[in-house]
Parts: sequence; structure tokens; C-alpha cells
Amino acid sequence: MDFAHDETTKALQQTLTAFMDEHVYPAEPAYQEAVDAAPERWAPPPLIEPLKEEAKRQGLWNLFLPGEDGAGLTNLQYAPLCEILGRSLHIAPVATNCAAPDTGNMEVLHMFGTPAQQERWLQPLMQGEIRSAFAMTEPRVASSDATNIETSITREGDEYVIDGRKWYISGAMNPAAEIFIVMGKTDPGAERHRQQSMILVPRDTPGVEVRRGMKVLGYDDRDHGGHAEIDFTGVRVPAENLISGEGEGFAIAQARLGPGRIHHCMRLIGIAERGLELMIARAADRVAFGKPLSEQGVIRDWIAEARVRIEQIRLLTLKAAWLMDTVGNKGAHTEIQAIKIAAPATVEWIMDKVVQVHGAGGLSQDFPVAEWFAQVRTLRFADGPDEVHKNALARHEIRKATADA
Amino acid sequence: MDFAHDETTKALQQTLTAFMDEHVYPAEPAYQEAVDAAPERWAPPPLIEPLKEEAKRQGLWNLFLPGEDGAGLTNLQYAPLCEILGRSLHIAPVATNCAAPDTGNMEVLHMFGTPAQQERWLQPLMQGEIRSAFAMTEPRVASSDATNIETSITREGDEYVIDGRKWYISGAMNPAAEIFIVMGKTDPGAERHRQQSMILVPRDTPGVEVRRGMKVLGYDDRDHGGHAEIDFTGVRVPAENLISGEGEGFAIAQARLGPGRIHHCMRLIGIAERGLELMIARAADRVAFGKPLSEQGVIRDWIAEARVRIEQIRLLTLKAAWLMDTVGNKGAHTEIQAIKIAAPATVEWIMDKVVQVHGAGGLSQDFPVAEWFAQVRTLRFADGPDEVHKNALARHEIRKATADA
Amino acid sequence: MDFAHDETTKALQQTLTAFMDEHVYPAEPAYQEAVDAAPERWAPPPLIEPLKEEAKRQGLWNLFLPGEDGAGLTNLQYAPLCEILGRSLHIAPVATNCAAPDTGNMEVLHMFGTPAQQERWLQPLMQGEIRSAFAMTEPRVASSDATNIETSITREGDEYVIDGRKWYISGAMNPAAEIFIVMGKTDPGAERHRQQSMILVPRDTPGVEVRRGMKVLGYDDRDHGGHAEIDFTGVRVPAENLISGEGEGFAIAQARLGPGRIHHCMRLIGIAERGLELMIARAADRVAFGKPLSEQGVIRDWIAEARVRIEQIRLLTLKAAWLMDTVGNKGAHTEIQAIKIAAPATVEWIMDKVVQVHGAGGLSQDFPVAEWFAQVRTLRFADGPDEVHKNALARHEIRKATADA
Amino acid sequence: MDFAHDETTKALQQTLTAFMDEHVYPAEPAYQEAVDAAPERWAPPPLIEPLKEEAKRQGLWNLFLPGEDGAGLTNLQYAPLCEILGRSLHIAPVATNCAAPDTGNMEVLHMFGTPAQQERWLQPLMQGEIRSAFAMTEPRVASSDATNIETSITREGDEYVIDGRKWYISGAMNPAAEIFIVMGKTDPGAERHRQQSMILVPRDTPGVEVRRGMKVLGYDDRDHGGHAEIDFTGVRVPAENLISGEGEGFAIAQARLGPGRIHHCMRLIGIAERGLELMIARAADRVAFGKPLSEQGVIRDWIAEARVRIEQIRLLTLKAAWLMDTVGNKGAHTEIQAIKIAAPATVEWIMDKVVQVHGAGGLSQDFPVAEWFAQVRTLRFADGPDEVHKNALARHEIRKATADA
Repeated sequence: MDFAHDETTKALQQTLTAFMDEHVYPAEPAYQEAVDAAPERWAPPPLIEPLKEEAKRQGLWNLFLPGEDGAGLTNLQYAPLCEILGRSLHIAPVATNCAAPDTGNMEVLHMFGTPAQQERWLQPLMQGEIRSAFAMTEPRVASSDATNIETSITREGDEYVIDGRKWYISGAMNPAAEIFIVMGKTDPGAERHRQQSMILVPRDTPGVEVRRGMKVLGYDDRDHGGHAEIDFTGVRVPAENLISGEGEGFAIAQARLGPGRIHHCMRLIGIAERGLELMIARAADRVAFGKPLSEQGVIRDWIAEARVRIEQIRLLTLKAAWLMDTVGNKGAHTEIQAIKIAAPATVEWIMDKVVQVHGAGGLSQDFPVAEWFAQVRTLRFADGPDEVHKNALARHEIRKATADA
Repeated sequence: MDFAHDETTKALQQTLTAFMDEHVYPAEPAYQEAVDAAPERWAPPPLIEPLKEEAKRQGLWNLFLPGEDGAGLTNLQYAPLCEILGRSLHIAPVATNCAAPDTGNMEVLHMFGTPAQQERWLQPLMQGEIRSAFAMTEPRVASSDATNIETSITREGDEYVIDGRKWYISGAMNPAAEIFIVMGKTDPGAERHRQQSMILVPRDTPGVEVRRGMKVLGYDDRDHGGHAEIDFTGVRVPAENLISGEGEGFAIAQARLGPGRIHHCMRLIGIAERGLELMIARAADRVAFGKPLSEQGVIRDWIAEARVRIEQIRLLTLKAAWLMDTVGNKGAHTEIQAIKIAAPATVEWIMDKVVQVHGAGGLSQDFPVAEWFAQVRTLRFADGPDEVHKNALARHEIRKATADA
Repeated sequence: MDFAHDETTKALQQTLTAFMDEHVYPAEPAYQEAVDAAPERWAPPPLIEPLKEEAKRQGLWNLFLPGEDGAGLTNLQYAPLCEILGRSLHIAPVATNCAAPDTGNMEVLHMFGTPAQQERWLQPLMQGEIRSAFAMTEPRVASSDATNIETSITREGDEYVIDGRKWYISGAMNPAAEIFIVMGKTDPGAERHRQQSMILVPRDTPGVEVRRGMKVLGYDDRDHGGHAEIDFTGVRVPAENLISGEGEGFAIAQARLGPGRIHHCMRLIGIAERGLELMIARAADRVAFGKPLSEQGVIRDWIAEARVRIEQIRLLTLKAAWLMDTVGNKGAHTEIQAIKIAAPATVEWIMDKVVQVHGAGGLSQDFPVAEWFAQVRTLRFADGPDEVHKNALARHEIRKATADA
Repeated sequence: MDFAHDETTKALQQTLTAFMDEHVYPAEPAYQEAVDAAPERWAPPPLIEPLKEEAKRQGLWNLFLPGEDGAGLTNLQYAPLCEILGRSLHIAPVATNCAAPDTGNMEVLHMFGTPAQQERWLQPLMQGEIRSAFAMTEPRVASSDATNIETSITREGDEYVIDGRKWYISGAMNPAAEIFIVMGKTDPGAERHRQQSMILVPRDTPGVEVRRGMKVLGYDDRDHGGHAEIDFTGVRVPAENLISGEGEGFAIAQARLGPGRIHHCMRLIGIAERGLELMIARAADRVAFGKPLSEQGVIRDWIAEARVRIEQIRLLTLKAAWLMDTVGNKGAHTEIQAIKIAAPATVEWIMDKVVQVHGAGGLSQDFPVAEWFAQVRTLRFADGPDEVHKNALARHEIRKATADA
């Protein structure tokens, strides 16, 4: 259980930190201004492109992707880098081609795609030329239970026909999101985890209607391509668009979600650290009733708790990453669940305090903290609500204990 | 300590409930649509006007205002009505001319205004012809400490000159908000609670610049006139625009905040009740892992806790209202503080669970719950952050205990 | 919903407060000393007797018992008196013959006893000549589910034969507890709430073995007769010892628990108030790092929260009491559950802070606060764990909402 | 940051686990019985002696002590072993000569003792022949602030004279505790952290009066030598009994507390793990309302949270241990504080749930969980209350952030 940063990691941390200092943080005000100025654009402002070029030039590209096609990092190596990316959530992940949901989608194509699928979709994604979306959640059912999925994928001759409604499909409002990975049922009568399949649906296929952007706590996340509601009505794609095989949907989702969940948590730690910095700076700056907030007991309590809690979730994230590297995603299942449970709740608590120390400004557009709060809150649902993960983890503990006894 | 609803209250409850059922709830979808369709309008959509007429016709008008000029209700009588108004936060308070900040402003003019001030501003406010704003909070200082206020109100001959920047001035983006009550310092050298004064500043006075709408967690609250940032630069108004007298600002603010705080809490209870209804309905409707959410232990725990907590804050609110009626706002000071501390935190907890039971939809624009969450969260700052109130209440407890001993 | 104290209540409050000041508080040190000095005595020290005489003389006797036989108070009248009794938990309830479990047992005999049963047991209990116990909880099953009860009550001729093990039978270690009300099953095959019966078992009946005193967090509660584990082995009592009728056990338990639960909550409020007093006194007295604890922000936060929370549970208790008086125990069911859920959790939170402000002394025998903590903690189980009550209350809410819809 | 268990650790884990299985767990019932049977004995029952012999024989002795004199383990090596010891808190630490407060006292003598002091006291302590106590806390002052210490240590010729009252001196009721390390002030006028000194006071010195055992939540911890209140009245010891030098008391305390705090946390993790095992076993065993507790949502939530939280505090403890090994106790200061804040609060939360799942039995003497709760609760004060640590940690964070900026 060695969490030390090796030389590769340290070098990348240094390069990435410099990149953040020189290119990312300074771009934040202009980025925000450009977003505000173009209320119809569901994509990052154009200034992201030179940042992408620069990141690519510096080798800060596809850091998330293991193996020769990506940066070749382990999860443990990527974790502290991903944390740094989380500090500038709008810009840094996109600039380095490490943004969700492309990361997960690239992993799916990398692991399960046919050469043709990889050639057609993985290559442009890895180059940052196009974007993608992952269409799983449905408005009409509790989608954390995969057996509830209502979208159908029906074989007809050489084609599959897709029918269903999805929502909260992140990134899909962005016209650059040219390809959707759609989860649906090919065999509703099969065993519960063999009913689902995944299939590639190009955005411009007839019958695909991107209806509207869903909001999260008032935010439309426009610059990230929003969160689309999409109707699939009699959508036909060639049979070779199926990923892996019929009935493999659940297994692919599991494989995809492992790294996806931990990446979320890594980024959350970056948000938490930057939030804590802002909280301390504000507390040191503001005076009320005769002394700075930073000398008031309750505020100090929050600062201490924030530090203590960040330390804990970072270590748990590192352990999960290390396990994924050493025993595989399946072996790391409990730890991935654990961090998925702990990190959002912890960082939500911290962010609530960061907001409170900022007073009304904490909920405003003048500081990033309200939006961070919204992001963090979302993660108590994304990839399944806390309650589902806790129930599963407990069941696992009970079984293990019973087996031991 | 009699909290029973008397006949007047019961009759009004019945009338108001019928008004909600017949006019308000049915108008909600069209209201929302009209708001969405006019992104530049910082005011309620026109459909509010017939609702106002109807409410006035039914005697559901100015319910908040005691005495002959208003509905003549006590706080205890108003409390259960205000709770009902809170159930449809966008429409009901405005439709009945019971919306903040007008309510507080009318009370200020009612209690402290000269006949001329009342004639000019109170009358049209009471008729619902114009709106108003209350300009206290400043971006550059911790405004919960009134000695921090930086806006100056300087006497020059027959005029006062106002200079300063305010923000989060609710309702002020609405052009119909024709009059602002501005808090500033007339004498920075005076004793700490005699430095401040309040003055009436018509919106169209030269030097008044309404700069932009501030957001709360992604919402601009456009249909309520938003939350403006306003610059006052060499703004000159006649000396008779001063309210009450120089140095009276803090006292007026205290007088205004008492009812204002409790009105917020009453409305919160209405939000909480409607939230609980939605939570139960959703839980009964959604099935996951083989049974409805409403049969799952954790969800039940939330429902029970929600009910238990709502009961407690309602009773505390009624007690505060009853005290205000019987011993006055000053005598009810501790209870007003107590409910200001308890209600937002309690309803925030409940609303978090309401959101969670709704899944991703809970943060979306398709249900009112995300917006309610944002409203509730705001009230942990509005009229002073929790921490300031707790500190004051504790100081009072310690003094009382020490005096007893 | 009138919670005001009427003249009767006010007069009794005054008398009782004077009795506490003159007789109860001054007796606390000698009481504790006497308890410590007699480690084998499972009963209050003899000094309790003159206090009982004095209380009886002053009309402070059987205050809990409605009707002509008792003090004739309503629940609403008793509530503020019971709160005062809670302030000196060891002495005041016993001194006024208002101590559990006798109160509940007297109510059972009062409501359901035959004249002969009343003559034989209720009379001496009401005179404070004997004590009693209520034998429901069993060590081997989750006793909050009455269908789990394993103790059997079998009719044989003119007798019933009782077999089973009970534990946590409060007061039963005291030899003065001459009569036990035992819950068991007369018909395990009946409908779930008709299987149980209650029967009177005199302590000295052959086959009754009081085995040992159970502890709560290290305390044996010796002076209150402890909490006994009792074996009933082939215990025979006359058939006329049955209370009410076969199959009535569950209904009697429900009737008994209503007042019992609310009495616990009333006393808890008294404990909380006295705890808050001690917390403030200690905080004002102790200096650390240059200033009294009472000027440190975190401590102030606790004091404020304690006050705000006490207010809420007191009002909820009063509402439950008022409902019991006006619509009966059944009609007050939800409110009784609500206060049973809220009060122990709230006062436990407060007592934790009271302990913390006292430092190590807070856990010691030199202050009453550690023992209060233990008492309060116990009430999260007594008469059913929180979780059972929450589940039932939620089910009720869901049904009501579904029926409304 | 390598937390992996090396070969030495793994071998010792295996040996220790076998020792626990063969000797410690089986001895628990007899141990408890012997303790109950001898209410006057303030020491472990005699059956501890053969266990000590066996542990020594197996090399499971003085595991805590670094260097050649002890087992020579690093903190990181000791951590998982100490966790195992925590699983049987009464027996295992004493049996392996790894029990507080001897561990800390041996470390003090090891680091700061003169050869004569080591010869006289360290040797028999290391052999397990005598016990010791550490007399710091005083009843009359908030002792977490070392400047409050009132005990005086006054030089008179070749002697020091000690006057003062201490309490909660763990282990000191045990007559085998032959030596006390006493903290007092040699120079009340010196700089705040140079006023204090430590001195060795043999138990049998005239003027030493061990007055009584203090309780914690009803427990006297008799078998661990209790927690004594001790008067020192004109106690004279030779000047060479001073440890290190005048004014060194605070520095020695800091050095002593580092390892002491982390040992507490390690043991807490062992308690938490065993508590979780008991919780799961009980939940699987008990049926209520038609299904085992282990299938009820709220209980599963607790089990999952317990696992997630244990993982986090274990990792934080390992990090603190690793830092102590690599950069020293001073460099690990923040992490030691962090774990001292996090571990007791976390394990208290877990233990509360363990108790609750056990119903009334959870507070009884039939399960170890009530006593564990009391132990854990104590650690929110021991070595300074949470609030003091949080305040210090926050100050450190603020300084660091300000220095960075």
C-alpha cells in the first residue's frame, strides 16, 4: 500500500501545476466572460482551443487513459493530477482532454470497441476533435436499478432500432458531441444483469431528438455541453454499432463506472482544497464585531474539520486507486464504493461552510463556490445515489462477516 | 400561550385555501412558462395582475399588515395564512400583496413614515401599484455588523447626499420598484447603534445605477425583481426623505426585521409541507430493487424526521408570533432569533432529502424543489447569518443565567 | 391549542418550586452520600420518607394521576410540573409518588383493574407504601415487536402458569416492589395484537427469581430499584390476577405507554434545563487560553442551539399533552411518537455538550451530568427504539398522504 | 507514503493474532468474572500474569517501544499491532506490556531519563514488574491550557517540594503503580511554555495521598487501576528526581503525547472493528417486524457508514505514523492532531450505532459495547478536548495559507 508519488508523477505534478499557474487560472475570468456573453452556446468558449494545444504540447493530454494510447499512467499516478485538474473545473479537464464523460467513453471504446469503432470514434475523441455523451439515465424510472431501464434496443435484420427517452445526458447539448453511447435493453426477459446492451448512436441519426438542457440547482452547465434530455424514436443504426455483445451492457457500465467514480472523487478533492483556500482567505479578510472571522471559534472549527476531512478522503481515494492498479477494478469494488459515498458528502459539508463564510457572495456568480456546491451536490446522485451504494456496501460487509463466522 | 386558530383565522384559511386551489396552483405552469419565455423581464409575468384583482376582491390582501390600514390581523392570525402563501412562493405572496421586501417596507412607512411619505409611497404600495426595495447589504463588508456599513448619507443644506454600493437588494431589478429605502451612516462617529439612518431614494434619482442582478445558486429570481447590485453616486434627495430621524436607522432595522424574519419562517413551513408532500408522492411512485421507495427504511426515516421537525418549527413560530402580539417585538426577541436559527436549518435538511428522493429530477427545472432548496439556503444568511444570531442568543442566555445566579 | 398555564398549574408550579428549593435540592448531597454508603441497598435511602410525607402534606402527591383518585390534573397541567420533577431525577419523582414505573402501573390498575385488584395493589401504590414493576422486555428477542414475546401465560384450571425470562425490569430489584405486571402470550396463534395478555404476579410467588441487576452504561440505578433480570419458572397465580382479559395485553400496553412516553419527555426537558444551567455556569467559570469558555464561539454556539432545541421539544410536548387531553391518547398518537423521537435525541445532544464543557469532570461522579447522559441515552430504547417509532410514524404519514391524494 | 506491512509486521500480526485467538479472547469471560468478584481490587486479576509470561515468551512484549530496548518497531509497524490489541482492551495491552499510561511513561524515561532514573524505574516497568502513572490533569482548572497548572514544584536545597491536587490520574489506584510522573510549575513567572517541569514521585513518599477513584460514565475502570484523585501536600523528593531540567515540562509533555495520542487512535480502530463485527452479528441474528435487522435499510446505512469511516481513520492513522517515522513527531504534528480529532468522534458515532442495534443489551454488562462507548467518549477529552485541538489545527492552517499567499 504505497501511495508515494513516483518520479513520473512528481514531474507531471510540476508541469501541470505550472500549466495551471501560467495558462489555466489566468484564463478563468476571460472564460467566464465569454460564457456569459454567449447564452446560446452549449460548448466551451473558443479560447479553450489554444489551451488544448498548449496542454498537448506539454504532454498534459489524455492523462487519464492507461496504456500506450493514453499517458500510460496508473490510477495512483493519475489521482494527484486529477485533483489538480479539479481546482479549475471549467477549464482544466477539457484543456487536457480529461473531461467527463469523454474519459469514460474513451475507456469503453478502448476496452470493448472493435477496431472499426475505435478508428471511427476513439481516434477523434483522443485527439480532442469531437466530444461524446453517455446515455443511461431515464426520466421515468429509478435508473440506479438497471433492471428499470425502459429504452429498447431491438434487432431488426442488420440494424438495431432504439426507442426511449433519456435525460441528464451530460455534454450532449454540445453539437460537437457527435457520438452517444446508449444503454438499453435487448432482452427484457433475460437474467437481470444480462438484459442490457450498449450501442453507438451518432448524434445525426434520424429519430434522435436532443430536446432541451436540464438544469442542476439553476445552472445549465452550458459550457460543458449541459445535460440533455433526448428522445430516441425508431432510431436505426447498423448492427456493428453494438458494443461488445448483446447482454454486455451492465458489465460495461460497471467497468466504466469504476474509474469514472474515482475521477469524480479526485476532482472533488481539488475543489475542496481550493474551497478551503478561499474560505481561509475570506475569513482572514473580513472583520465582524471587532475581529477577523478567522479568529472566531466557529469558523476555526470549520477550517479544522475541513482539513481533517480532506485528508481522510484523499487517503481513501489513493487507496482505491492503488487497489485498482494492483488487484483490478473488481477487487477495488468496496473501496470505490466507499469513496463514492464519502467524498461527495464530505466535500458538500465543506462547501456549505465555504459558502457560509462568504456571506451572500457565497451564493453569487462573483465567486466559484456556489457553482462548486451545485457540482458536489450532483455527485450524491450521479452514478447512483448514496443510498444505493450504502445498501450494496452493507450487504457486502454482512456477507463477508457471515462467511467469516 | 394560546395558539388556536380563532374564527377570523379559520375563515381566512378556508378562503385562502380555496383561492390557492382555484387560482394559484392552476396558474403555476403558465406562470413558469411565461417566466421562461421572457428572459429579459425582471418582474412577474402579466398573468399575476388578474390574480391580484381576485385576491383583493376576496379580501386576501395586505394580510400581513396590522391595524386598520391592512387586514388587521395579529401575527398569530397571520402565521397560518403566511404558511399557506409559502406553498406557492412565486405567485401567492405577490398575488396577495404579501411579498417581501414590500411587506417590511410598508411596515416601516406605516410605523415611521411622515404623512407625506405615506401618501407618496405607502399608498401605492398598499394598492399593489408599485414595488419597493430595501438597500442594506454591502458587498465590501460583513453587513451583519451594522457598524461596518460604508454607505454615507451626508446632509448638505436641504438635501442628503448618498454615496455607496449595495448588493443583493431583492426586487430592485424590477422597474416597478420605484422606491428604495437606503441604510447608510449619517454620523460614523456616534455610538455604534446611532451612526445609521434610513432614507427614501426614488429609483429615478440621478446617481442611482442599478448595475446587475446577483444570483443565488444559479437562480436570478427574475420574476421577483432579482437581487440587484446598485451604485449610489452623489445621489441627492430632499431632507424630508429621511425616515424618522438621524441615527434611527439601526432601531428601524430592528423593528423591520422582527416581523420580516418570522414571515420568512412561516413561508418556510409552507415550503416544507409541500416538499414533504412531493417527497411522499415520489417515494410512493418510484420502484427500485423490487419495492417502492416509500417502503425502504432510510426513506421512511427521512419522512418521519421531516414530520417531527416541521411540527417543532411550526410551534416555535407560533410562539414567537404570539409573543410579538402579547409582549411586543422586543419581548419576543429571543424567540424570533430562535426561529430564525431553527427554521432555515431545519427546512434545508428536509429539502435536501426531498431533492434526494427525486433523484436527478430533484435538481432540475421540472420540479420546484431545487429552487426551494436555493431559497432556503439563502435564509441562512438573509437578515444576518446563523452564526451571528446564535452568538447573540447565547450572550443573552449567559447574561440571564448570571443575573439569576 | 392553548398551552397557557392555568391558575391551578401556576399555583402548583409555585408550591412545587418552593418544595424543590426547600427540600429537594438541599437533600441531594446527603442522598448521594447515603446511596454511596450502602452498596447493597436497591432502594432509595431512608431520607426519602420524610420528603414523601412533606410532599403529601403539601398536596404534591400523585400529580400524574388524572381523576378523583389522583391530583386530577390534565396532561397539560402536569407537563410543567413533571418538567420540574425531572430537574432532580433521583429524588423529586419518588418524593411525590410520580416515579416510573409506578405511574404507568397505577394507570393500568386505575383504568383496567378489577375492584379487588385495585383494593389489593392500587391503594398501597397510591399511598406510596409499596412499589411495582412492569415486566415486558425480554433478553432473547427484539421486544419492540410484541409478536416476538416468548413468555407464556397458560390457563390451567383456576390458575395461570407463567414461564419466561424478562430483563431490564426497572425498579424490580427493590424488595418493596411487591407486585409485577407481566406481559406474556396467552394465545400465540391469535391475530398479532391479540396474542398477548397482562397478569399480576406478586413478587413472592414461588418460581419468581429476581436474578441480577442489569446496568446502563456502568450505572446500576440502585436507588431506583435497578433494572432486574427475572426468571419466571412455572409461576402460578389465580386466574383473577389477569388484567382486563385474555388478548388485551397489547391494547393495555399501548394505553400505558402513551402517558409514560410523554412523562419521560417532560422529565427530559427538566434535565435539559438544569444541564444548560450547569453548562453556562461552568463556561462562565472556567478560563482557557486567556478568556472564559463562555466567550468562546463554539461554546456559545452550543448554548444557543441548546436553548433553541429545548424550546422546540417543550412546545411539542405541550402539544402532545394538550391533544391527549382533548382528543385522547389515540388521537394524539402521532404527536406522542413525534416527541418520543425528538426529545431523547435532542437532550442527548445537549447533554453531550454539557459533559464536554465540564471536561473530565463531566464524566465523573462529582457532577450529575454523566448520569443524566446515561439516562437520556437509555430513552432512545425505552418503550421501543427510535427506529421503530420513526418507521411507524412514516407509515402513518404515507398512508395519510395517499388517502388525501 | 508507503503504508504496506513489511515482513516483520506481517509476522508479528500473525503471531499476535494467534496469541489473541489462543490466549486473550478465551480469557475474557474469566477475566470479567474475576473483576466482578473482587470489587476492592484496583488492579487486573491475577490471571493476567501467565498471559504476560506467554506474551513475553512469544516476543509480543514492549511492542510500542522503539529502539533496542523495546521491540524496535516503527510507528507504522506498531500501528496494525496496536489495533489488534485494542480489540481486547482489558487484557491485550496489559498482557503485552503495551498499556497506557506505562507506554508513555516508559518513553519519557527512555528519552529523557538519567541512567539512574532508568535503572531505578524504567527497568522494572519494561519488565512488567511495576506500573506507573502520569499526573497532569487538575480538578480546579482547564488543564488543556498548560499555563493553568496550579501544582507547584519548588526547589528547597537538594530537594523539590510538590504541592497540588491532581485527578483522573489513570492507573494510580493500583498499588503496583509505584512511580508517578508529576507535572507542575517550577517557575510561574517564566515564558508560558517554560514554566512547567516534570518530576518523579514515588507513590510511597510522605504527603502523597491517593484519595479516591474517579468514574467515567459510571465505570471505575478498576482493573486498570482506575483514575485517581491525588493530593500532593508538601511532598519532598530529591532534586535528581527532576526529569530533564527545569522548564522542560511542556516540551516533555508534547513529546510524550505524540505517540500516546496515536496509540489511542490505533486501539480505537480495533474497538471499532470488533464493534462492527458485533453489530453485524446481532443484526443478522435479531428479527423484528418480519425480517432480520440486517435487511432493514437504516441498519444497513449504519453498517456501510461504519465501514467507510473506519477505512478513513485507519488510513489517517497510518499516515500520521508514517510521518512520525520519517519526519519526526514535530513534523507529524498536524496529522497527529487530525487523527486525535477524527478518531474519537468517528468511533463514538459507530459505537452509538453498535449500542443501538443491541437494544437494551447494548448498555448492559453482558456485552462490551457500553463500556467501549464510555472509553471512546473519554477520548474526546483525554490529552485535551477536541475543541482545543481544532482551534490549534485551524490556526496552523490559517498561518500556512497566509504565508503561502
